[in-house]
This record gives sequence, structure tokens and C-alpha cells, in this order.
Amino acid sequence: MEKELVFGHQNPDTDAIGTAIAYSYLQNKLGYNTEAVALGEPNDETAYALKEFGFKAPRVIKTAANEVKAVMLVDHNEPQQSVPDRDQVKVTHVVDHHRIMNFTTSEPLYYRAEPVGCTSTIVWEMYQENGVEIPQNIAGLMLSAIISDTLLLKSPTTTDKDHAAVEALAKIAGVDYQKYGLKELKAGTNIADKSEEELIDLDAKSFSLNGSEVRIAQINVVDLPEAMERKKAFLTAMETAAKENNYALFMLLITNVLDSDSKALVVGSDSAKAKFEQAFGKNLVDAEASLPGVVSRKKQVVPPLTEAFE
Amino acid sequence: MEKELVFGHQNPDTDAIGTAIAYSYLQNKLGYNTEAVALGEPNDETAYALKEFGFKAPRVIKTAANEVKAVMLVDHNEPQQSVPDRDQVKVTHVVDHHRIMNFTTSEPLYYRAEPVGCTSTIVWEMYQENGVEIPQNIAGLMLSAIISDTLLLKSPTTTDKDHAAVEALAKIAGVDYQKYGLKELKAGTNIADKSEEELIDLDAKSFSLNGSEVRIAQINVVDLPEAMERKKAFLTAMETAAKENNYALFMLLITNVLDSDSKALVVGSDSAKAKFEQAFGKNLVDAEASLPGVVSRKKQVVPPLTEAFE
Repeated sequence: MEKELVFGHQNPDTDAIGTAIAYSYLQNKLGYNTEAVALGEPNDETAYALKEFGFKAPRVIKTAANEVKAVMLVDHNEPQQSVPDRDQVKVTHVVDHHRIMNFTTSEPLYYRAEPVGCTSTIVWEMYQENGVEIPQNIAGLMLSAIISDTLLLKSPTTTDKDHAAVEALAKIAGVDYQKYGLKELKAGTNIADKSEEELIDLDAKSFSLNGSEVRIAQINVVDLPEAMERKKAFLTAMETAAKENNYALFMLLITNVLDSDSKALVVGSDSAKAKFEQAFGKNLVDAEASLPGVVSRKKQVVPPLTEAFE
Repeated sequence: MEKELVFGHQNPDTDAIGTAIAYSYLQNKLGYNTEAVALGEPNDETAYALKEFGFKAPRVIKTAANEVKAVMLVDHNEPQQSVPDRDQVKVTHVVDHHRIMNFTTSEPLYYRAEPVGCTSTIVWEMYQENGVEIPQNIAGLMLSAIISDTLLLKSPTTTDKDHAAVEALAKIAGVDYQKYGLKELKAGTNIADKSEEELIDLDAKSFSLNGSEVRIAQINVVDLPEAMERKKAFLTAMETAAKENNYALFMLLITNVLDSDSKALVVGSDSAKAKFEQAFGKNLVDAEASLPGVVSRKKQVVPPLTEAFE
């Protein structure tokens, strides 16, 4: 069988990388010939999870069509979040937990989406549906992905299925998920040794909202005031990135993973900033707004912004 | 739980109607509150299957937003094949076996697609995954849907899963699927008492191919020469429909369900007809082309046309 690549979105997080590895393993067991790769290097949190369960970081690719004819996507479907030459390859499988947008195929495919907290939760179900045993180290990686996406089951995206998956996977992986989860999340919050330019690109996604290019980045921290000391430098870096990439709006969500509160920093055109204010019912004061309880880009940021831009 | 409507595409066939009924039953067992409806009256074949297994035709709706906030789609995803006011309701679930095109949501949803012969084959898997027993009459309807979509397992869209589903469902329904299948397919081939205008609209779908509106209709028969005696009247009806609806191309596929051969009748602009010829490597002679072995609009017609229009 001809080889296919499996990968998550650009600026990969633990779901994008961990689920690509877990899904590739499952598909190979089912008779496909796949390799899990990534569209970028792992972030600190993902690196921690990979090391904890004995994995090396997947090979990073910049293009797909140079080596395969077909690919499988996990944790994304929107073209601007995928490999740049995705229109040159056939997408045969998608497993995802996001809205569907600008995703088009010329032929039928396998598409599995569920509105759950993490793609690994869906892949966990698929292992069971297909009667494939989950190896201990893969279970650890899938557990790490769910902990990451749901902020240890505290994000409003969390469902009963995510809870069930975490319980089951922790058992297979042989870890106490509360203890391990806090260690994993904290591993991703060390921002001291990174530049503002790096931080605003680490977990950033672009969305095309009614024709406007909107960039939404998120940083996890354990100390919000400490992060806000760098506000001016963040705004400068965001202004530059917005100009270079023609973003109508660049929003940085700085989230305290311990108490699930966020601050938003926002740059962009006056009309786009007005749409931000409309979306969240908050005035931007000095390019900043408090968003208490907002931790999920997908569930709490993209939908109100999409509506405001319509 | 708030009620949702479940329905298949416009100009419903046995998959659109039968699978809507089967999926609605499953979802209700899983705790949802749904009603299976249809976007049109059943065709002769579907009416035969409904009667055979003791069902009444589902209620026909013209709009959805007037009665529900959310819907579940089976056997389609493209907006122009769906309820006209679909942009006014939320799509929470899709089960389908077609390409994905112009399908957009603002929030995550359940989306289950597989490249198999019939949507009922996927729903059959879902019954098993969820441990829900399939009632005898629902099994008969799902069986009828698979027989219809795969022309009794002879279409090139047929997969091993469709075979397995047919075997299993025939057992539950208590019928000999070869004998029943031929009777069912023949029930849909009586074209004598229908006008050409009716026949070209009975199983017709619109596709937006690179900005061009393309209409593809299919008629099942057991006697191709008899059907071709009405060629001139078909072409006149197609010309009228193309003008009224601004179709760049209107293609009618007349398929012999017994030997899996087809004739195509084609009207449209010269450039669109040239694209048809390019797509199939056939010259149109007097608006007609033989397409031996072509029985699947989805697998053998839409992909080459899509490519030719690009």
C-alpha cells in the first residue's frame, strides 16, 4: 500500500503531534502504510510529554507533495492551518474536533469529527471500535493531548467522553493523571527564555472570517501579572506580524492554566478592534481586555468573533 | 431535549429517505429528540421499499428554520442539495458518503463520512458501535438503501463493508437480498407513465464546478433502447430546464440496472459540452454518448467533470 503522511496543524501542540502518532499507529494496524510527521517542532509542553513516554519528536515537513500522493489530517481541516501544498495531495482521512471551513475534496473520504475536547478522545474511541489494543506509551501520549487541550478537564470544551478517555488512558499509561497533568501543563508555561516574537507564534492559528484574516495566538502561564510585564513588547511584535502578514486583527490570549482566566492583547485596524469589542462585550483599554473564564480559542473566541465579522 | 429534524438531499432516493429514518431511530435511542423528514416525495423505488417494510412516506418539508433550530443531515452535505434555508439552522450531525464541498460551520459538530457505497452502511456500523439493536423493518429499509445505491452491489462504489452490511441486514430483515433487490430495482424503472420533465428531475443533483452550475440527472431502466426512443423529448425538457436555471451543463445518465451500462444525453453551452467530451474522452454525437460501465454519478461522473472544469 502506498505510503501516506499523517499530521496535525501548523504550530503543532500536544494534540496535533500526539494524535498524529496515535492515529498513524492505529491506521498501520488496520493495514495502511503511514508515517506521523509534524508541521513544526514540538513546543515545551509537547516535548515534555514526548520525553515522558519515550518518543522522539516526529520529522518536520514543509511540503507533502514532494514525497506522497495522499495524506491524513488530524486536529485541523482548514487549509490555511495545514501544509502549504495541501492542494497538491489527496486528503483520504480527517479526524478532527473543530468546525469545518473551506475544506473541499473532489472525492469521498473518511471524515470523523466530534465536538469533544481533544482529537485523541475520538481516536481513543476508534481504537475501541476497531478492537486495536493501545500500547502503554501511545496511551500516555493521547492522555497528554487530552490534558493539554482541556487544561486538565477544566476547559468548557470538555465532555463526558474526554473524562472517560482520560480515566481509561491513565490506567493503560500507568500514571496519576492529576499529578502528571499539572506537571505537563506547567512544562508549557515557561515563557522567560523566549522572545515575544516566538511566544506570539508558538500556538497561533489564522482564520478567514468573512474575508478578513484574523490571527489568534494563545500562551499558557501560571503567573498572569508576570506575563503582563512584557505587554509593550508583545504589542510591538504583534503590530509587526500583523503588518507583514496583512492580519486585520491579531489577538493574543494569555491564559492562567491554574485558575482558567485570561487577558487578551489586541492589535489591528480600528474596525477590526471594534468587532473584537462587539464580540466580547468589552472595551479595549490600552489594547487590553480581561476575559475571565475564557480559555478555549475554539469554543469561546472563534464563534463570537466569527459572528461579529459577519 | 430540543427537537431536531433529520433529512437527506432534495429529490430524495432510497438512501436519502431510508437512512434518515434509520439514523433518526438510532439517535432517538441515544437520547436525542429527532424526526425523520424528507425534502420531497419518495420515487417509485423508494415507495416500493417503504411499503414492503411497512413504513409511511416521511413528512415533506420545504423549510426547516420555521420549526427547529438544529438539523442532522444524511447522504449529502452540499448546501445546494439541502433544505433551502439551511443557513438559518445549525447543523449538529452529518452522516454521508460524498465528497465535502461548500460545507461550512461556525462550531464543531459530529461529522461521519466514509467512502462506501451507501450512507446506510455507515449507519449500520454506528448501530453496532453504540450497541443498539436494529429492528427488522429498519434493517429492511437500510438494506433497500444499499441495494439502491450500489445497484445490488454491482456499482464500482461498492466496498467490502457494503457487502457485509447487506448480508447482515438481509438476515435481520428476513429476506433473500438477491431476489428482493431485483424486485426493488425494477420497481424504480417504470418510466412509461412519467413525463420527460418529471424524469429529468426525479434523481437530479446540482454541482457548482469552478463557478459553473452543472446538473446531473440519472434514470434507471431495464430497457435502454426503449428509453432512447424518447431522446428528442428528453433533450427539449433539458434545454428548457437549463435555460430556466442557468445550468452551464445538463447531463442525463440513463442506466440499465441489469447490465450496468449507460447512455448520456447532454445539453449546455459549447464550452461546457467540450468539457464533458474532455472529461469522458468521448465525442458527443447528436447530444449523445455511450458510457459503458458508468453507473455511479459520484464516482464515475462528478470527479472527471470536476477535473475538466478546473
